[in-house]
Amino acid sequence: MHKISIFSRRAAIVLLLLANTHAFAQTPPQSVAKILRVNTKRIEQRILALAEFGKNPQGGVSRVAFSAADIQGRNYVMSLMREAGLKVKIDAAGNIIGRREGHDAKLPSIIFGSHIDSVPNGGNYDGDVGSIGAIECAQVLSENNFMTRHPLEVVIFADEEGGLVGSRAMLGELTEAALAVKSHSGKTIRAGLLTIGGNPDRLLEAVRHPSDFKAFLELHIEQGGILDAEQINIGVVEGIVGIKWWDVTIEGFANHAGTTPMDKRQDALLAAAQLVISINKTVTSISGRQVGTVGRIAAEPGAPNVIPGKVVMSLELRDLSAEKVNLLFQNIQQEANAIAQKTGTEISFASIPTNSIPALTDERVRKIIAESASELGLSSKLMPSGAGHDAQDMARITPTGMIFVPSAGGISHSPKEFTQPQDMANGANVLLQTILKIDQGAVDTN
Amino acid sequence: MHKISIFSRRAAIVLLLLANTHAFAQTPPQSVAKILRVNTKRIEQRILALAEFGKNPQGGVSRVAFSAADIQGRNYVMSLMREAGLKVKIDAAGNIIGRREGHDAKLPSIIFGSHIDSVPNGGNYDGDVGSIGAIECAQVLSENNFMTRHPLEVVIFADEEGGLVGSRAMLGELTEAALAVKSHSGKTIRAGLLTIGGNPDRLLEAVRHPSDFKAFLELHIEQGGILDAEQINIGVVEGIVGIKWWDVTIEGFANHAGTTPMDKRQDALLAAAQLVISINKTVTSISGRQVGTVGRIAAEPGAPNVIPGKVVMSLELRDLSAEKVNLLFQNIQQEANAIAQKTGTEISFASIPTNSIPALTDERVRKIIAESASELGLSSKLMPSGAGHDAQDMARITPTGMIFVPSAGGISHSPKEFTQPQDMANGANVLLQTILKIDQGAVDTN
Repeated sequence: MHKISIFSRRAAIVLLLLANTHAFAQTPPQSVAKILRVNTKRIEQRILALAEFGKNPQGGVSRVAFSAADIQGRNYVMSLMREAGLKVKIDAAGNIIGRREGHDAKLPSIIFGSHIDSVPNGGNYDGDVGSIGAIECAQVLSENNFMTRHPLEVVIFADEEGGLVGSRAMLGELTEAALAVKSHSGKTIRAGLLTIGGNPDRLLEAVRHPSDFKAFLELHIEQGGILDAEQINIGVVEGIVGIKWWDVTIEGFANHAGTTPMDKRQDALLAAAQLVISINKTVTSISGRQVGTVGRIAAEPGAPNVIPGKVVMSLELRDLSAEKVNLLFQNIQQEANAIAQKTGTEISFASIPTNSIPALTDERVRKIIAESASELGLSSKLMPSGAGHDAQDMARITPTGMIFVPSAGGISHSPKEFTQPQDMANGANVLLQTILKIDQGAVDTN
Repeated sequence: MHKISIFSRRAAIVLLLLANTHAFAQTPPQSVAKILRVNTKRIEQRILALAEFGKNPQGGVSRVAFSAADIQGRNYVMSLMREAGLKVKIDAAGNIIGRREGHDAKLPSIIFGSHIDSVPNGGNYDGDVGSIGAIECAQVLSENNFMTRHPLEVVIFADEEGGLVGSRAMLGELTEAALAVKSHSGKTIRAGLLTIGGNPDRLLEAVRHPSDFKAFLELHIEQGGILDAEQINIGVVEGIVGIKWWDVTIEGFANHAGTTPMDKRQDALLAAAQLVISINKTVTSISGRQVGTVGRIAAEPGAPNVIPGKVVMSLELRDLSAEKVNLLFQNIQQEANAIAQKTGTEISFASIPTNSIPALTDERVRKIIAESASELGLSSKLMPSGAGHDAQDMARITPTGMIFVPSAGGISHSPKEFTQPQDMANGANVLLQTILKIDQGAVDTN
């Protein structure tokens, strides 16, 4: 008889009842797996403890990757991983990986986790819920001496907010150019990796192959307001949207605002204003969940008494379908041409290279997530992830699933970010059940 | 017989012919005055010589007030003033004043001139044409030994581009707060005045009174494109428009551009775009020459992947009628309220204090300018000045007139600024004739 934790009395009783009839010490039956539950209180306590590292006066955190706070936070989660019985290592890309062996060493591992780095002036839930939730799953299994068939890997990705650095490295796509980019901490990514135990000169050692994994799972807060508004417990992520960025330049003619009559102006900002409205109309004119945003704008020379001669603004389009993004962009270009002609300006679009092509989750994994939610008595909804996640990289090498839990008011990347303890526990329970179902062969490929 | 310059042979011959019949040495007859003409070539040469001080690679000048280039330029024009027989002094506000006595020392002086300081990266014509033109008038009178009844004062105002510093001081309105303002040169106005021979502690000595002056005249380039487009030689300025400035703040809600559906946004920039268009429509919806401009805009936080939560932009309205500006502003506020309601944002206007109330020129002086142009065979047009000028301050203490000459393409405050030599000479001839008509009593008050 294995040692049984006080944290799961119900599971312990069932295990005792079943002790004589099943070889559960080697492969516990699904009936046992189904009753394993995470510890809501512990999750909440650990979320609050993690929030201490990089705590800011606004009530959130600035725990940007490679900062002192990030290093402290990483040390904290590594201690939790060890407490959960995981064998912890840091790979060359700075990813923290906690491994738990399964019955069959030849099987690929089920990998799950998220990140603990934050944006500057971020919140306490973003990647933390999925990180603490993943460790909690391992801890519950450990406390219940529940051995899976597959090895498990709990992963805390490095520098997610700086551009999915850790998962890109797993794909072998963290280039020299990317290493030279300055991160939020002020350090280059190369220098940053050295401070967290990575080794930028040995990145090949961090590369992972499809054969390594059975599946990848990530629990995360929604960061949008749909689940909260519709009072749904679990979001089953259909995919992570592709993101395209452009710099839009509107060239008019700068002139004296006092001496140039209204009908003699080539006002770049007036044209830009028409384009901002037109972008919004174009994006909302067709059904679907695509989004389009102008987030940055500057007028030159930028004086109250000079007609703007030039405006540069950003354009971002996101959707699960790359074709739809392309179609929207074509329509926006057409509208821009008409505006340029009407206003005597020139409008051009410069594409900004991004890594974010749409990434669909695995249909089978989605089903298991929805089924797990349903068995836990939780409502769920299929939805896209409008934000980027390491899951989009992982989806390229292994069947991937993402589980969303509600964000209060849809607020994210803000000290006001909040997710209820019960919602975090719901998500972690769905994660745990999904891991166990996949372990039992619910995803039959690989 | 007085010495006769080679620059005006025609005038000299007439003077010789008239020598025996008129006491012209004391008060030359109007018939002589009428044939005095400026020297086009000399004006052009001096404009080009002045352009050397603060010359920049773009072909314009950066001769901001109180800079080394400004000091060199001032020394140059003072040498020209002395050459023109003027007695030169610098007042406590740094204004250069070149005086020429008239027959009657008890009469108030006719004052005329402009400024030679430029905006950063400005052009070679802005205040220079009126400055060199004014000195040219004095020189022609001197060369022809033409003595006016009234004393004449040629004025080169200090730091016009920094907020009409010199003329404000003449009104006694250059406050301690204004002296503390940092000028384009980087120096405070107080420190700047000391570098150009002024004395900020004795500004009272620079204050002038209505009884000092018969009239003020300023020749200036139009800075707009109306005269050039309509091929009219002379603009008779009806008045200098009043200028009102506001900071407009649009408050929405910043949120994640990927996770926030289009119908759940409170996008401050989308609302701002509607307001920019609405301002343009409001200003152009009524007839007249009023102008309205949004020249500066910033969205916060200003990232391509964040929905703008806040936009701050400038609003400027200009017209000769303060009532019209107020009416336009009321209409814009109404439109803003409707936009705020529709977009779920809050829009507020903060008035920025400016000194620019509308300043009308003197109706009698306008007539004399138009008459002078007509007698010189030049076409003219009554028009507002959309730009601010020292004339707007002078109009508060003495009957004031302004003469515009064409700006090629309406370009100003730019290295591309250009006015044809013939146009500069036309303006200076109109200035000269207007001075002489006023001297002869064409303006009967004062």
